[in-house]
Amino acid sequence: MVSNSGPLHQETPADAGAPLRVAVIGAGYWGPNLARNFKASPDCELSAIVDQDTARALKVAGPLGDVPVFESLERLFAEIEVDAVAIATPARTHHLLALQALEAGKHVLVEKPLAASRELGMQMVEAAASRGLILMADHTYCYTPAALKIRELIQEGELGEILFIDSVRINLGLVQPDVDVFWDLAPHDLSVIDFILPGGLRPESVAAHGADPLGTGKACVGHLSFDLPNNAMAHINVNWLSPTKIRQMIIGGTKRTLVWDDLVPQQRISVYDRGINFQKASTSAAQRKAQAISYRMGDTWSPALPETEALGLMVTEFAASILQGRPSRTSGMAGIRVLNVLEAASRSLELGGERSFVASNDVQLEGTR
Amino acid sequence: MVSNSGPLHQETPADAGAPLRVAVIGAGYWGPNLARNFKASPDCELSAIVDQDTARALKVAGPLGDVPVFESLERLFAEIEVDAVAIATPARTHHLLALQALEAGKHVLVEKPLAASRELGMQMVEAAASRGLILMADHTYCYTPAALKIRELIQEGELGEILFIDSVRINLGLVQPDVDVFWDLAPHDLSVIDFILPGGLRPESVAAHGADPLGTGKACVGHLSFDLPNNAMAHINVNWLSPTKIRQMIIGGTKRTLVWDDLVPQQRISVYDRGINFQKASTSAAQRKAQAISYRMGDTWSPALPETEALGLMVTEFAASILQGRPSRTSGMAGIRVLNVLEAASRSLELGGERSFVASNDVQLEGTR
Amino acid sequence: MVSNSGPLHQETPADAGAPLRVAVIGAGYWGPNLARNFKASPDCELSAIVDQDTARALKVAGPLGDVPVFESLERLFAEIEVDAVAIATPARTHHLLALQALEAGKHVLVEKPLAASRELGMQMVEAAASRGLILMADHTYCYTPAALKIRELIQEGELGEILFIDSVRINLGLVQPDVDVFWDLAPHDLSVIDFILPGGLRPESVAAHGADPLGTGKACVGHLSFDLPNNAMAHINVNWLSPTKIRQMIIGGTKRTLVWDDLVPQQRISVYDRGINFQKASTSAAQRKAQAISYRMGDTWSPALPETEALGLMVTEFAASILQGRPSRTSGMAGIRVLNVLEAASRSLELGGERSFVASNDVQLEGTR
Amino acid sequence: MVSNSGPLHQETPADAGAPLRVAVIGAGYWGPNLARNFKASPDCELSAIVDQDTARALKVAGPLGDVPVFESLERLFAEIEVDAVAIATPARTHHLLALQALEAGKHVLVEKPLAASRELGMQMVEAAASRGLILMADHTYCYTPAALKIRELIQEGELGEILFIDSVRINLGLVQPDVDVFWDLAPHDLSVIDFILPGGLRPESVAAHGADPLGTGKACVGHLSFDLPNNAMAHINVNWLSPTKIRQMIIGGTKRTLVWDDLVPQQRISVYDRGINFQKASTSAAQRKAQAISYRMGDTWSPALPETEALGLMVTEFAASILQGRPSRTSGMAGIRVLNVLEAASRSLELGGERSFVASNDVQLEGTR
Repeated sequence: MVSNSGPLHQETPADAGAPLRVAVIGAGYWGPNLARNFKASPDCELSAIVDQDTARALKVAGPLGDVPVFESLERLFAEIEVDAVAIATPARTHHLLALQALEAGKHVLVEKPLAASRELGMQMVEAAASRGLILMADHTYCYTPAALKIRELIQEGELGEILFIDSVRINLGLVQPDVDVFWDLAPHDLSVIDFILPGGLRPESVAAHGADPLGTGKACVGHLSFDLPNNAMAHINVNWLSPTKIRQMIIGGTKRTLVWDDLVPQQRISVYDRGINFQKASTSAAQRKAQAISYRMGDTWSPALPETEALGLMVTEFAASILQGRPSRTSGMAGIRVLNVLEAASRSLELGGERSFVASNDVQLEGTR
Repeated sequence: MVSNSGPLHQETPADAGAPLRVAVIGAGYWGPNLARNFKASPDCELSAIVDQDTARALKVAGPLGDVPVFESLERLFAEIEVDAVAIATPARTHHLLALQALEAGKHVLVEKPLAASRELGMQMVEAAASRGLILMADHTYCYTPAALKIRELIQEGELGEILFIDSVRINLGLVQPDVDVFWDLAPHDLSVIDFILPGGLRPESVAAHGADPLGTGKACVGHLSFDLPNNAMAHINVNWLSPTKIRQMIIGGTKRTLVWDDLVPQQRISVYDRGINFQKASTSAAQRKAQAISYRMGDTWSPALPETEALGLMVTEFAASILQGRPSRTSGMAGIRVLNVLEAASRSLELGGERSFVASNDVQLEGTR
Repeated sequence: MVSNSGPLHQETPADAGAPLRVAVIGAGYWGPNLARNFKASPDCELSAIVDQDTARALKVAGPLGDVPVFESLERLFAEIEVDAVAIATPARTHHLLALQALEAGKHVLVEKPLAASRELGMQMVEAAASRGLILMADHTYCYTPAALKIRELIQEGELGEILFIDSVRINLGLVQPDVDVFWDLAPHDLSVIDFILPGGLRPESVAAHGADPLGTGKACVGHLSFDLPNNAMAHINVNWLSPTKIRQMIIGGTKRTLVWDDLVPQQRISVYDRGINFQKASTSAAQRKAQAISYRMGDTWSPALPETEALGLMVTEFAASILQGRPSRTSGMAGIRVLNVLEAASRSLELGGERSFVASNDVQLEGTR
Repeated sequence: MVSNSGPLHQETPADAGAPLRVAVIGAGYWGPNLARNFKASPDCELSAIVDQDTARALKVAGPLGDVPVFESLERLFAEIEVDAVAIATPARTHHLLALQALEAGKHVLVEKPLAASRELGMQMVEAAASRGLILMADHTYCYTPAALKIRELIQEGELGEILFIDSVRINLGLVQPDVDVFWDLAPHDLSVIDFILPGGLRPESVAAHGADPLGTGKACVGHLSFDLPNNAMAHINVNWLSPTKIRQMIIGGTKRTLVWDDLVPQQRISVYDRGINFQKASTSAAQRKAQAISYRMGDTWSPALPETEALGLMVTEFAASILQGRPSRTSGMAGIRVLNVLEAASRSLELGGERSFVASNDVQLEGTR
């Protein structure tokens, strides 16, 4: 233990009334944000910062009230008692650290992507399930007020059946050393789609098309198409080379269509009460085909959204799912579903865009959603 | 001949000094626009309106100075002398009417799509070529001030090498009885891409993904991906079901990136002087891969565009190509190149998005570009 | 009578069942638009076009079914029977033509501004009132779907009490030979404010500030401030020299605030359910002053507007007010109220911006609203 | 002295090579921002935080490296050596604190407004001038990359002669307890106008119109008009009651017009190469009046702006003006010029909008700009 202000090793288990004791693993880019939000949460207690580079960890720990700093999970678990860990280290290390924590009986929050592959991710999910511990994916975008509102609107049936989802996330972005533009940017869109659809993200197959016009060795421009229930389709466009920035998701429904434009702070969500009208009787596809289609031009509505930090709500959900003993809303399985699509996308890309089947793990792990 | 004010049959051939005598075939939706522009053109003389429904034709002919009206091409050719015809009838009739006119020695302008299939289209191209007549595709969008400016900027090298093209054309649109959303909307994007790229539209293959979530029997949502030279890629998104209207084409280049937003009349084109910087030496892909990439944040520039009607410029080009004996800038072959991609897209769609090869007719008809 | 197709002089009076027989006076810029809309109206019959320049009148009359053309009101009234005239001649001639028509027992519609001065305008209003004839001001903007919706929302109390109105109408505009920017552009804003406020446009005084930085001899940039009921204020900014075009009216209310942006066709009106909250008890100003103020951040709502041509609705209202024997919604008095403000603005401008009182004619002509 | 880590009283004077030792006075809303920027500046050393509420001061001082904290200027000057103070206390205390510091031989930076009245402000300016000390107004907006660019463009003649300036700053804002909307918001616009115009802000008179429709006891909606050189005019619209937020300044020039829209981060400045064309010969106003005016529709250009924090540049300017012994670019006199207009505006408001003369102090203090 590096800090001399930390508590001694305790065997006392957490009880529902006490705040959740959480250690943040990783003091790089994302860890400090997590640490700040655990510190600010009334449900949690920031118990420690863990990083091999303890100087870096101390720099994070200082302004947060000189929380204790450890150089490894072993030392953390040996010296103080925590209930959970939040892992914000490079993706390739998630698997090892998460298993270590789960085996020590700790709940685990993992930065996206859940793991470097779905196979490793599944081991994490199984380890958590077998011990009755929470494994949560840090899909931060799902906890933005916009995504929470969209989930609510869809679940209340305000959009009707989903007809299409189109998501564009393009910007001048750093070409990443280890991942292509799909693995870098699409997890945001995929995790949100998983979050807002009642059935989650479960396409049968995906097709990915990409380009590497600068010869960087990986796709810098990418298009991902996959099926949604009821013959609907989703498409995601990610691009590192666009000097014009777009972050827009259009969700077309039989009743209304929603546009989420994340770059318009005062009106992020617009709901268009416009669309196709069928006569009520014609519920079957055959009937629809046979008859004329008319259009409906209704009002546009933009719900007020609270100005809440997504990360704060994510931390609250982590604590709540632990205390209530229920899967979190972005569970480990949600992380797996995102990995399933990314892996299939990579296979499709290798095969020149051929439709590639998406793994399904639903049967194996019932009840973990 | 229906109108009694028309001139008698004349054998006098057109000479370069006299205006081009043009008959418009079809008095439905598009024909009246063509007729109005031929009437207004100083290079042309609107000689007749032809339509089986002569009442409809008379309605168009009246306000344009009571030009003669005919019920068929046979009657037209039998009674008056024209130099050219402009065909604005349903696509399935283009082939027959164009061949009839070409065989009568007339130059032909054809509304998009050139023909119902590339095979039929090729017969038209060959018929025109063998007689030394002009066959021009009415790719109107290519003659908008925006498209003309983009063509000029690309050809002058202002954008550098093209890295990607992304075109979105979505709106609440009428589900067409005979064609899907690809054939209805994508010809606009495809013809523009053919027009602005120095080498024209010549992908090796395309992949198409579509959805018919309303069960109309045809794709209402569509995504089209294809390769561009130098490992670049193009993508076109067309959609009939979107209540939010987008008509935007992003053209990313190594030097600059251009955004064409057709719904912002005062600033349709924005040129971003931002992008990726490489060291000058590293021209090979291998070198690019090895070295760090940096970004350049430069000015944005929006060229002033004249407020000229595209159709008027198109008519001028038709007359000019005839008088100068050169292929028009949107030649029959340009129409064929668009058909090639559309047919490959339809095949890909049938095969669930499998990449489908695009026919190439370049060898057979050199010099007709 | 110039045309030989006109009917002979008839004494038959118009009855409620027959369409209103209307002659359009003036075949310049605006007259043809009026003529086209009277022609299209089921309530009206376009009986004649009158213009000293009969060639110009014939050009308008031709495509509208060769309606008769006259060179003067005298000839019109001498030769055919009409129920009403619509005057679209230069402002300085409105007074003479309107009086001539009213004395002949015709209802009169007058293009804005009603007259060259409020004194002349009042003579017109009085002449119409004394004969029980309709005098209507062609305040076209009031009949746009946007203005009609705003009037409805305000009258239903959706905005609460009005707190402020801010209207901006700036553009690169032609410097007019005879009027300054206030008289050229502000009538649009003033007539709309008169139309949407339940009490109409009745400020006690106005202050006008203008600039003529190019030395054209008249104000090219103008700002107009005046009081509204309940200590609210209105401000109008008009400008001929701005290359950026803005047409925006913000109407702040105690309950909601409405923004009319006329350059955003798909969302012209936005209603913000945001504002100041007071405790219910504090209805008096003294109480408001004493207590803290809080803010309410609610939804934004954009009502769907029909795509109806304003001029068509204006023509319908003219016919309806005649048939129903009631003042039209933009009556002669509405035109006077606009003139009152413009004249006071001119006086203020001469006095360097000093607040100038606005004439009030309300007492003299009760019941004419 | 409250902190025990501060240095002892030192008599060593600052020399040009050493960083400027600065104490921040006031640990409320703005002081921490100043402190953070002085801390980060390579030119300065943050020597102390001063606040009567030392607990509040310690909270600011802690994360900035535990800089010493003092409860008063007396204690500050008694215990440590500083070169300058930055005053971020309520406006009514600026005068007393600034004089105290100037009398102690310290350079002074003062948050806007410079003082509660121009009379008090002038005493500060005179006190600084007589001692050869720098008095700088913290007109932060002037140091935004946008304002710096606009100043540069105007001074290089890119806009030509200024024809009009229109500034709108409206938002849902807290009704302030002590000042009206003019004093709260207009200083931003006025200080920028003073900064960008070569001659500074020197109108002869201003007219102010305001409204207090909620009965808060002070204007919540305000319009300010004043003259600019060469018959141009400026107008500022400030409003606390508008739920739609606008921060836009339009600067019309004879050559180009610039629009600064501060809410569009990616394109804050647009320069329109559009405007009025005169024939070259007609340079006199009389000639302009006589001849026709034509329009020029040129390109739009949006310069790239660095993403620099304004406050950092302001701090740099404070240090530079001290080291170079020259007035800062937002000198005390700039603060006076803003106060001159605000005081005249208040007088105008009391007189119902009557034009009120603006005080001029230029003669008295030559050389202080």
